[in-house]
Amino acid sequence: MKSFTLLAALLLSTPLWAGSDDLTATGDLGLVVERGTGSLVLIDRSDRAAVARIEGLGDLSHASLTYSPDERFAYVFGRDGGLTKVDLLERKIVARTVQAGNSIGGAISDDGRLVAVSNYEPGGVKVFDAGTLDLVADIPAAGKTIGLVDVPGRRFAWTIWDTGEVFLGDFSGAEPKVTLLGNAGKNPFDAVLTDDAHTYLIGLFGEKGVTAFDLWDAAPQPVKFLTEYGKTGEDMPVYKMPHLQGWAFTEGQYALPAVGRHELLWVDRDSQETVATTQMHGQPVFVIAQPASPFVWVNFATPLNDTVQVVDSRSHEVVATLTPGKAILHMEFAPRGAEVWLSARDDNKVLIYDTHTREKLGEIAAEAPSGIFFTARAHQTGL
Amino acid sequence: MKSFTLLAALLLSTPLWAGSDDLTATGDLGLVVERGTGSLVLIDRSDRAAVARIEGLGDLSHASLTYSPDERFAYVFGRDGGLTKVDLLERKIVARTVQAGNSIGGAISDDGRLVAVSNYEPGGVKVFDAGTLDLVADIPAAGKTIGLVDVPGRRFAWTIWDTGEVFLGDFSGAEPKVTLLGNAGKNPFDAVLTDDAHTYLIGLFGEKGVTAFDLWDAAPQPVKFLTEYGKTGEDMPVYKMPHLQGWAFTEGQYALPAVGRHELLWVDRDSQETVATTQMHGQPVFVIAQPASPFVWVNFATPLNDTVQVVDSRSHEVVATLTPGKAILHMEFAPRGAEVWLSARDDNKVLIYDTHTREKLGEIAAEAPSGIFFTARAHQTGL
Repeated sequence: MKSFTLLAALLLSTPLWAGSDDLTATGDLGLVVERGTGSLVLIDRSDRAAVARIEGLGDLSHASLTYSPDERFAYVFGRDGGLTKVDLLERKIVARTVQAGNSIGGAISDDGRLVAVSNYEPGGVKVFDAGTLDLVADIPAAGKTIGLVDVPGRRFAWTIWDTGEVFLGDFSGAEPKVTLLGNAGKNPFDAVLTDDAHTYLIGLFGEKGVTAFDLWDAAPQPVKFLTEYGKTGEDMPVYKMPHLQGWAFTEGQYALPAVGRHELLWVDRDSQETVATTQMHGQPVFVIAQPASPFVWVNFATPLNDTVQVVDSRSHEVVATLTPGKAILHMEFAPRGAEVWLSARDDNKVLIYDTHTREKLGEIAAEAPSGIFFTARAHQTGL
Repeated sequence: MKSFTLLAALLLSTPLWAGSDDLTATGDLGLVVERGTGSLVLIDRSDRAAVARIEGLGDLSHASLTYSPDERFAYVFGRDGGLTKVDLLERKIVARTVQAGNSIGGAISDDGRLVAVSNYEPGGVKVFDAGTLDLVADIPAAGKTIGLVDVPGRRFAWTIWDTGEVFLGDFSGAEPKVTLLGNAGKNPFDAVLTDDAHTYLIGLFGEKGVTAFDLWDAAPQPVKFLTEYGKTGEDMPVYKMPHLQGWAFTEGQYALPAVGRHELLWVDRDSQETVATTQMHGQPVFVIAQPASPFVWVNFATPLNDTVQVVDSRSHEVVATLTPGKAILHMEFAPRGAEVWLSARDDNKVLIYDTHTREKLGEIAAEAPSGIFFTARAHQTGL
């Protein structure tokens, strides 16, 4: 009843946003995924305001998106296999294709020409022209594709859940050149590229450990480490698989969520040894570095997802515990770190916090918000 | 005679750019400083094209600029003390103040509200409202201000050439709070902030060495290192002081230009020990990391400034030597590293190179170009 009341209030409210301006700079725009309604809220970071809603994107549960280099277009990867191109200036969908039965993410090439989508059903990678969404390459796989990332030089890397195979695809020539880099191990569940595009890290579910490939090397080899890392037994249910894209890289360390435990693990980036463990409020989901600071922010799996904690990467101690709202699903920082935007799904709000005072600056109404994506992501490798 | 012919050809040519579009995304725009004519060329990175010229900015020799968080406005710091606000969408100057006799640079606060300018004549820092360019704070100094950088939390750090004093100014409250952090040493000539806002590094001219302050610390203390670093004697003229803003941070190292020598120095970021020296073509000026790669690109002081070299940060060896044009003054990378744009002052051209093939992709006419600044800088701390 309560959620119905909230929903009705939202639907009856006056428009959330002002009229369109002919001249809009795109550097401080962003999109919030409304997971239940297949829509996006276009947000203005400077004004801390919603400026438009864009509808008709299909199933956006677990959706992600990426931006064109000019920040004009977003490519939205829906759970229903939909790839939707949205124009942030026209505030509308300009192209949409349902390209598979079940997709889980994608990436855009470093030159902005190609968009790659990783698929579960059928498995594999499809590559599209970023301008037209015409299919330009279809790379089948022997299973579900996970951990698709962009690699400099119009390349992408990805991994297969069922087989553990890790591929590097080079799309800079007339024909795609796909290379099998090696085997990561049993049932890789997600992968991430470090921000310098140096190391492709793959988390394993079917066995303990993390596998790394050095993508700066001409012939990358799998290196397994953190062999104590992984699921710790049947008595500890895993409420939600953590996102490796939320691994924080700070102070020469990886900060990563322990699978199924109320812990954060700190790994030295050079030695790959565990240097510290931080006891946390719940099972970490995203662990994200506050830009230009020593801090990482952590959110948690259900049922403890009303809380966010801040940890100092030098002392490995929790320095703040916030309870901003109900079901905090995602956190997105202003690119220079002054603010963090949090989606509170069950409050139907996006909350804006000052990262220095850790006090609330404002909020924006949104329908069951999940992912928040600022356009500055257009300029970051591996996102 | 030759330069006159080139100039005449430029002036007589048909317009360099197409008409304005009502809808322009700003993520792939940039500005090129035309140092001799007090003008800027607005460039479109995706189209590899000039789209407008903006004139009337005064003395732009040694000019730099910074962007508002939405990427709509540039704040241009001229050598004549002029602070000019340029609207990239309207393609015109919207505000200009001559705020000192001789300024050398500036920065914008992390929240985009304040613009600070570092001045030589008279020395000190002036802080302006980013919207109106109204003066909001005037911090005098006992000498010339160098190395002004933005620090998270609406703060700026700067250093005084004459006294060696290092200040941190906090402008987050009703009144500015300026703290003397300590003394860097004799005649600091430039300073730079690491991209994580952790370490403020100050190069010395009056004595050998570099001084570091840990800005994550509540009470930062000066730590001197690289005490063999600096001018090496009267027999080796220093043709141009290197820019510390061009220090590259890669692979856990600082790559820095030797003052007055044909060398690049590699310093371990943790131990602050020199780990390698690379013999170079000339006296390095800018040493800039190619994003998401192991490479740094280096340009050189006159008279050897027709050459650019690429060095691998793992082997510390020169892997490519290019001679792209006459008087290469600056290098700017596409934010994900796919291209590098070079200003060839005496060719009156900006040259665009593919960083992977290291071949030329295109060029743009510009009048004696110096600095090139892409809007993605809006999202980077310390630039």
